[in-house]
Order: sequence, then structure tokens, then C-alpha cells
Amino acid sequence: MTAPLKARYRGVFPVVPTTFTESGELDIDSQKRCVDFMIDAGSNGICILANFSEQFVLSDAEREVLTTIILRHVAGRVPVIVTTTHFSSRVCAERSKRAQDEGAAMVMVMPPYHGASIRVAEPQIYEFFADLSNALRIPIMIQDAAVSGTVLTASFLARMAKELERVAYFKIECAGAATKLRDLLRLGGDAVEGPWDGEEGITLFADLEAGATGAMTGGGYPDGIRQIVDAYTAGRREEAFRAYERWLPLINFENRQCGLLACKALMKEGSIIDCDAPRRPLAGLHPSVRAGLIETARRLDPMVLQRR
Amino acid sequence: MTAPLKARYRGVFPVVPTTFTESGELDIDSQKRCVDFMIDAGSNGICILANFSEQFVLSDAEREVLTTIILRHVAGRVPVIVTTTHFSSRVCAERSKRAQDEGAAMVMVMPPYHGASIRVAEPQIYEFFADLSNALRIPIMIQDAAVSGTVLTASFLARMAKELERVAYFKIECAGAATKLRDLLRLGGDAVEGPWDGEEGITLFADLEAGATGAMTGGGYPDGIRQIVDAYTAGRREEAFRAYERWLPLINFENRQCGLLACKALMKEGSIIDCDAPRRPLAGLHPSVRAGLIETARRLDPMVLQRR
Amino acid sequence: MTAPLKARYRGVFPVVPTTFTESGELDIDSQKRCVDFMIDAGSNGICILANFSEQFVLSDAEREVLTTIILRHVAGRVPVIVTTTHFSSRVCAERSKRAQDEGAAMVMVMPPYHGASIRVAEPQIYEFFADLSNALRIPIMIQDAAVSGTVLTASFLARMAKELERVAYFKIECAGAATKLRDLLRLGGDAVEGPWDGEEGITLFADLEAGATGAMTGGGYPDGIRQIVDAYTAGRREEAFRAYERWLPLINFENRQCGLLACKALMKEGSIIDCDAPRRPLAGLHPSVRAGLIETARRLDPMVLQRR
Amino acid sequence: MTAPLKARYRGVFPVVPTTFTESGELDIDSQKRCVDFMIDAGSNGICILANFSEQFVLSDAEREVLTTIILRHVAGRVPVIVTTTHFSSRVCAERSKRAQDEGAAMVMVMPPYHGASIRVAEPQIYEFFADLSNALRIPIMIQDAAVSGTVLTASFLARMAKELERVAYFKIECAGAATKLRDLLRLGGDAVEGPWDGEEGITLFADLEAGATGAMTGGGYPDGIRQIVDAYTAGRREEAFRAYERWLPLINFENRQCGLLACKALMKEGSIIDCDAPRRPLAGLHPSVRAGLIETARRLDPMVLQRR
Repeated sequence: MTAPLKARYRGVFPVVPTTFTESGELDIDSQKRCVDFMIDAGSNGICILANFSEQFVLSDAEREVLTTIILRHVAGRVPVIVTTTHFSSRVCAERSKRAQDEGAAMVMVMPPYHGASIRVAEPQIYEFFADLSNALRIPIMIQDAAVSGTVLTASFLARMAKELERVAYFKIECAGAATKLRDLLRLGGDAVEGPWDGEEGITLFADLEAGATGAMTGGGYPDGIRQIVDAYTAGRREEAFRAYERWLPLINFENRQCGLLACKALMKEGSIIDCDAPRRPLAGLHPSVRAGLIETARRLDPMVLQRR
Repeated sequence: MTAPLKARYRGVFPVVPTTFTESGELDIDSQKRCVDFMIDAGSNGICILANFSEQFVLSDAEREVLTTIILRHVAGRVPVIVTTTHFSSRVCAERSKRAQDEGAAMVMVMPPYHGASIRVAEPQIYEFFADLSNALRIPIMIQDAAVSGTVLTASFLARMAKELERVAYFKIECAGAATKLRDLLRLGGDAVEGPWDGEEGITLFADLEAGATGAMTGGGYPDGIRQIVDAYTAGRREEAFRAYERWLPLINFENRQCGLLACKALMKEGSIIDCDAPRRPLAGLHPSVRAGLIETARRLDPMVLQRR
Repeated sequence: MTAPLKARYRGVFPVVPTTFTESGELDIDSQKRCVDFMIDAGSNGICILANFSEQFVLSDAEREVLTTIILRHVAGRVPVIVTTTHFSSRVCAERSKRAQDEGAAMVMVMPPYHGASIRVAEPQIYEFFADLSNALRIPIMIQDAAVSGTVLTASFLARMAKELERVAYFKIECAGAATKLRDLLRLGGDAVEGPWDGEEGITLFADLEAGATGAMTGGGYPDGIRQIVDAYTAGRREEAFRAYERWLPLINFENRQCGLLACKALMKEGSIIDCDAPRRPLAGLHPSVRAGLIETARRLDPMVLQRR
Repeated sequence: MTAPLKARYRGVFPVVPTTFTESGELDIDSQKRCVDFMIDAGSNGICILANFSEQFVLSDAEREVLTTIILRHVAGRVPVIVTTTHFSSRVCAERSKRAQDEGAAMVMVMPPYHGASIRVAEPQIYEFFADLSNALRIPIMIQDAAVSGTVLTASFLARMAKELERVAYFKIECAGAATKLRDLLRLGGDAVEGPWDGEEGITLFADLEAGATGAMTGGGYPDGIRQIVDAYTAGRREEAFRAYERWLPLINFENRQCGLLACKALMKEGSIIDCDAPRRPLAGLHPSVRAGLIETARRLDPMVLQRR
């Protein structure tokens, strides 16, 4: 991989799902096996406590438990990004400092949002990330996703990249992601250390073409995503396209039919974790959707479904 | 007041703002004075940790501190409703049981929501409130507000009132609240123990006409809201209208110009609390808006601005 | 009234409702009486074909019929603003030119929007209004309302005021309208010929304080709105506040309980028009809401309900 | 194809783009060549005036011109679905009757919507489609898409299928489309004559598995979509999957990077139409996005890019 000298992190950093028991408690044993699998399957790094980790059904205490246990269990094998989004500048900074002290490589943070309508304006978003930047030594990834209900223009993101020391990575997973990545790179230049792709990789090839150097996808098949990203990064563009073409039906099935339920269903099917149910009141997968997912995955022989 | 035999709670239950120091820490001394004022000013009960309490900028630990301290400080002088909304059925039930054990009279809960787009369907909302009902001995108030981004039809609310033992109160603060209250009472009958009004009282008179028996307003002037509600409840409708007419400019100014910033600005002006700033990154009141609020309030000589 | 030299239009310009027969056809006789009433009741001007005119249930042909008939019927008694919003730059410009040629004093236009999600970015909004400005000789009022689903910042509005010749009036009816009016005047200076208030006048007093020189309200009681605006403009601020206090219960009832149904209900009750039903599939007023509206209005003895 | 006896229409019915000249006028010559191409490329039928046809930038008069010209030009070669959505029951019925009289096979209609917030409740939506059903002899397809900002539950759709004579087809293109198609078929039974897929085919294979019998996709490559649908319908499921896998990168590129701009860009590149610009103020394709689209398409040698 011919990484730019400056980029500390690049490649495939999938989101770790949070594993529960049937009765809805944290299942730490499954959680560790899940993380081990994701590392063994080729993840260049991992991200915990994202929305795809069902972070919004966790208590603060459970977040801290998971952060501590996973960082210790990973023990430096790969860099770990910890999601620490909170509406409050203070609570977000405190969460982030704890993660940093426990060994997080980076924090991923959205702009403040609550529910359908509680938002802040651009000057307050800037202040929020400035406070966070001042509190940390590790880089910050701004997550730009529709769930925040906040439009972050490319010029605003580029300004924060230039002016706020720790703001260096950007996961762009909104509509028109490729065009936004291009604009961000044009406006932000070297300050944009990491222009990253998200949303399960559904726009991965177009985003790589636009300059993405990292991908934060679902955690079920990092081996597949690596085939695309590694080939592209090494300059073997046609090979990358062919790999993308091969994996796209699965990526699409995850993105459109399953969402955050896909990864755990694959891991349960592969006997990596004990239970793939989301926490209540989230609904589980419809059996026919689950069957479609497994069938679509089996065609690709991903590591997650290989005999172990 | 001629309350129906069955209604355990009725009247004016304003939302308690959360008070911070200039540097953004919880200010417990101001908090206690704030609660004392609200009781002295005639609140029939109070509600804590609502969105108007900036609950979304608090950590879980701070929520528990506030719940414990306020319940002890109130010490039974008035009933206290504790807001315990969380997306997770389990976390919400645990929060709610702790509140119940510490003496909460009721919990107020919204349907599960996260950000602009993460929602669950009606069967899961039902399951969520069923889980909560099974976990508690005290009544549940469902908060029906636009911030949840979830439409709860009157027939669905009425069904939960009838089928779920603890679901008995409803704070209706969506568009067309008066019509929805009428529909809810028609469909839910006696199971609707408490059809309540919200949203700072901006539709209070129409909601009383529709059958509302409680009002959850801002906390700055319970003495004013009592004039409206008490007169109406006692059958003095014309007097109630005249009181509403008198207080409406202030209610309107709070609702449209200030939101959650109004109550603390009044309490700071009245020397009840030390600091009226919201927690970062929320923006404070524009000085000219603040001046307009204080002037509008002074016309009414509310207790909050009286010399102490 | 001490109008600034430069402002061509100021004062109370209510929205004219579109009147239908019981079977849903345009009722031209009622329409003319409706317009006559609004002029006789003191409107400084009127606005037609706004969303409060149910413009979205009209065919293009009906829009043209109404524009022609109303402009001829008004015959210069007061200035008429014609709403000509359309997503297409071309169609909007053509509609606007026809209105101009028939005698419209101004056009009112929203940024392009369609449904919940089809929008254009700021450069395209600029281009849209530039095209429109180039096509016209009369001033353009930009309507800044939540229904467009488009955030127009004060600095963007001010830039269009300065750079686009015909863009001179702004109806601000979004959240925080008073603060936005202040920002707009600060940033746009003299180019903001008309900073106007909207949304049935629900924030009228605060908007006048912020510098609003025009009010586009519902059409049912221009005589009432004039009491507020005239007194304020003449420097009799206390009198204006008292008038606002008096009329606010009715303004509030219109804004929160009735929306576009209020004006026609009042005009029907006052025997000005024959039918107050909206066009299908819009639902009519609930009888108890209608009764509340009429009662609230009767307390004020507005011209619309006076014997004729 | 082994169509059920009862289904009048099934297969691939792509949306016809509306073609303009560089200056934004209707380009009728290009329009006719576009329609001819779509028929020659294997469309089982076509749909005009959908949102993907930029219908929202057309005047009513232009809609009628296009309807008349296209229906005459097609002259029965394939069935034509005409989109006739309008908020008004009356205007929608009139548009639909005109389309029927000119030879439309079906009308496609969304529930009433305007902008971000003007909607009607379920009883009014029912009334709207009842009025429409009563006015027509041809079938109605209800389009269930996010742009309407209206949630239509499967049970409500099934009820309309059963109770309203002409309501028989459903284009499901909301989140969870496959699950909704399954629910709709389970609840609606034989009354659901046509459970159809939409959204450029991005969920086509999953929707076919769920029972979809028609696909309304973009118009650029009906030959490709036919490979998938024909194989599936004939029971050659594996062949269908392989075709889907092959075409998915292009479908995905259209859906996520281009939207309504893809089809015309392909047709321009293939010299079928003269201009691929959308009408102002819609922005055209970024050159690098356009290049990506053409490259992705060329890999598949679609008819649209074949020498002519």
C-alpha cells in the first residue's frame, strides 16, 4: 500500500457490533470473539460504539465497559476508533479523553443532534469541535451522516480541518458522497488527512475514485472489503472494480435490507457469536430476509461463514 | 378543584430547568432554589429531566444525581414526574425503576427515537411501553411531541391506555393537540386518566376546552398558569379566558422566541438562580430577545420577578 | 405612518383565501366579495395564491383565472402581491411576467422545493432568483418558510438582496424570525427594502421590534392587525402592545388550531362568502374547533363578523 | 413468461425522462427518439411524467403536450403509465381522465403532498383514492415513495386494494421494500394485482424474491433489467442473480451518484437525444461523475451505448 506519508490511518476499519445475550445483557465473551474475528479477517482497524453498534440502546456505564474491555482485548493489534458523540461539548470531551487514556487511536464524533428537531447552528458546531480539539491529543473523525439531521457543507468541513488541530478525518456518508469527498479534498488540501467512506461501502468504488483512503463498513466481511480497497490502493483499479462487482450484491443486501442487523446475523451463522438479536425494542430480521442475506453471503465464501 | 375521583394527578406541573454554573457544571444550590421557587409559586407538581431541562446534554450519572437530589429536596411537598426516556426498553425500565424507588410519582417517556431517522414501528413501540408498564408500580405518562419524529395516532394511544396497566397519562403537544385530546378521550374513555397539555401552554385554553386536566408548561411562572387552570377547573370559564389572554403574550414569547432558555432567564433576572446559560454548545439568548422576554414578563408582575 | 422614503410597500398585506363552491369549483362571486371585504377592512395590500390560498390544490389554469380576475377586480385600489413559486426557473419566470403584465405590484416566491426531499443547493437557489430578477421589472419577495424544507441563512438572503436587482422584500416566517430579521437588516442594509413578518402574525410584536415593516397575515381580520401595526409604526408602542395582547388569542387560535381554514370560516360566518370548505382532500374544521374560532373572534368584534 | 391470469401488466416499465433543449424548451424530436429507443431496448411498457421525468419542473400545459405526443407516438406498441399526481382530488382526477381518454393503460399516483409539511391524514388519503377510483376505468398504481413524506402502511394499502375498484398496482420504493411487498401480498391477496419494484432497481432481486411482478426503473438500460426480470420470471433464478450481479454496479451508480440525471446522460452519450441537461435550476452532472457513469455502463455494452 502506498500510503501518503502523512496519513496515520487508512484502509478498512469496520464497525464492531455490540453483542447481547438473548435476555438483552452485554455478552462479553461473544464480544471478544467478534473483535478477534474482525481482526483476523483483515480489518486494518476497527470502530466501536457507532450507531451500527446500537450505541443508542446503551447506558453510559455500558459504553465505558465496552470501551475498556475492547481496548484491552485488542491490545494494540490494530488501531481502535471510539465513537464518543454526545450533544454536550463537555460530556463528549470527557468521553473522548477517557477513550484516549485507555488507548483509542481516534474518536469519531457527529455534530450535536437530538431527535427530529433539536440542532445547533454552524457557529455552535464549530465551537463544539473546537472544544473537543482542545481537549485531545489524538485525531478526531467527523462523521457526516444523514442521521444527524445536520447539513455540513464541504467548505465548513474544510475550514474545521484547517483551523482545528485534531480535526483530520472525515467519514462522508451522506447523499452525493463522492462529489463531497472531491470538494473536501479540493478545499481542505493536506489538512484532510483522512477522507473516508462509510455507509456499509454502498458507494465504495465511487468514493475511492474520489480520493477516499479509508472505509468504515459493516463488520461482517472485512476480507471482502479488503479485496476492493487493497487492489485500488495498489493501483490495480480493474481488479478493484471486479472485486467490488463481486461483493456489491452482499453490500447492497446489507445496506438496503438489513442495516445494523446484517453483521450479527452473519457472525451468528458463522458461530462466532451466540446471539444475533438486537436489543429491544429494535426488531430482529424477518426470517426470509435473513435467509436472503446468508445465501447472498455464501456465494462469496466470506471468512465469517467458513468452518471453524 | 372538582377533580374526577380517579385522577391521581392534575393541575399545573411545570418542567424544572437544569441549572449550570458559568463553566457548565451542575449548580446544585441554584437547582434547589429553583425547585423551591416553583413549589412556592404554586406548582401542583413538577417534572424533571425533560428536553426543556436540557436532558440531552447530561450524562447518565448527572441524571441520577439530579433525580436523587431533587426528589430528596422536594421531600413530598408536591408530586414529581421524572422523565426517563431512552431508546432501549431495558435502560428506560431501569431508569424508571430507580426513579420510582426514590419517590417519583410518575415517569414521563417518549417513544424510542434517535436522531433524524432511527425509529421503530408501532408493534415495537407497543412492546416498549408494555415492558415499561410491567416493570413499574407508578403511572406512565406518554409524551407525544414532534421531537420524537414519530406519529402516535389517537387510536394507538387509546389502545395502550386500555391494555397497558401503567399507561394512564398523555402529554399531547403535537400539531392539532386539542383535536387529538378530544379523539383520545372519545376512544380511550376512563383509561385516559390524565389528558394533559404541554408546549409551554401555547394551546392551553383550547386544550382545556378539549378536556385537558393537566398542563406541563415552562417553569418560570406557575402562578400565572394556575390563574388559567384553576379558574377553568372551577367552572369560571370567562375568568380563565381573561387570565389566558393576559398571560398569552408571555407564553407566546417563551414558545416562539426563547424555548428552553426562557425559564432560566426569568429565574436569573429574579435572583433565584446564579446563571442562566445553557450548557455548551447550546447558544444563549440574544440580548434583545432577553430584554423582550423580561419586559413582557414584567407587565404581569409574576412571582419570579418579585423582590426577594 | 413614517415610512422610509425608499420602501414602496409596507403595512398589512393579508393573504386572500381561494373560495370554492360546495362541489369544489372556483366560486368567483364569493372571491370578489372576499377581496372587497379585505380591502374595506383596511388591508394596505393583499397577496394571492399563497399556500394559505390553497394554491397547491389549483391547476395552472385556475391560477391564471384567479390572477386575472382578482387583479381586474381590485383595479388598483391596493397593491397586489401574486405568489408565483414553481420549481422551474422558467415556469416561475413566465408566471411572474404574466402577473406583472396584468398589474401585480410584486411577486412572492419560495426557493425551489418538491415534496419531502427534492431540493437544490445554494448556488442553484441563487441562480433561480437571478433568472427571476432578470425577467422582471417589479420587486420580488422571497418567502422564507419551513414548508420549503430549505434553510436560507440571513447572510445568503442579504447577499441576494444586494446583488439581485429585484430581490428586495423578505417574508420571514421560520423559527427565530425576529432574530433573523435583525441579522438580515444588519447584513443587508438598505438593500432590504421590505423586512416582513408572516405566519398569521403569531410573532408580530417581536418582529416589529426587530424592524419588520410589513405583515402578511391571514385575511380574516385586517382591521385587527392594522391596530397593532399602525400604532407601532406611528411610534405608539404601548398602544401597539395592548392591541397585540387583545388580538393574540385569535391570532393564536388561527395559527395553532385552524391554519388556512380560519379565514374562510370567519368569512362564511360573516356572510361574505358562500362556502368555507377547503378543496378535497383537505379536511374541514372540526365543529368544536370552528365554534372556538368564532367565539374567540366575537370577543373582538372584528369587521368580518359585523352585520352587513 | 408465466404471468398470473389476472395481471394485466407485468415486467419492465422504465420511466421516460423528459428531454429539453439547451435553452430549456421541450425537445419533442429527442423525446420521440428516447421513447423509441426505450421500446426497442425491450421495455414491456413505459411510464411518463414521474419525478424521474422531472415532472416537477413542468407546467400543466407541458404535461398535457407530453402526454398527448407520447401516447400518439407510442401508438399502442407498449402500454403507457401516466403519472398524474396532484394534491387536489379534482385536479388529479381530471388529469387522469384526460390520460385515460388519450390511451393511457394506467395512472400512477402518490398520496397528496406539498413541500416539507403539508400532508393529509389517512381518512383523507383514502377519500382521495376513492374519488380517483370512481372517476376512472383503468387501473391505478399507488406510488409509495419517501418523497411523499407520507407513511402508507401495508395494511392500509391492502385495504385500498380490496375496497377501491381501480386501485390494483403498487410501486413500493420505500425503506424495507421487500418486507413491505411480502406484507402487502399477505394482507391484500388477489386484490394486489401488481406488486411492483421501483427506485432504479436498487433492491430488484430482493423484491423479486418477495413477489414483485413489475419493475419501474430508470430508462437507460431496459435491456439489462429485462435480463434479470425475464430470467427470474421464467424460473431461472440463478441466471437472474448473475444478471443482477452484473448490472448492479450500474444500477448502484445511477441510484447513488446520479439520480434522474443518469438516463439522459446515457442517451446523450449514445446519440439518442440531443441534450442531457436537466431544466434549471437543477444542476447537471459533475464531469467526473458523468465519466464514472459512462465507464460503468460501457462495461456492460448496453443498447443505449451501441453504435447507431
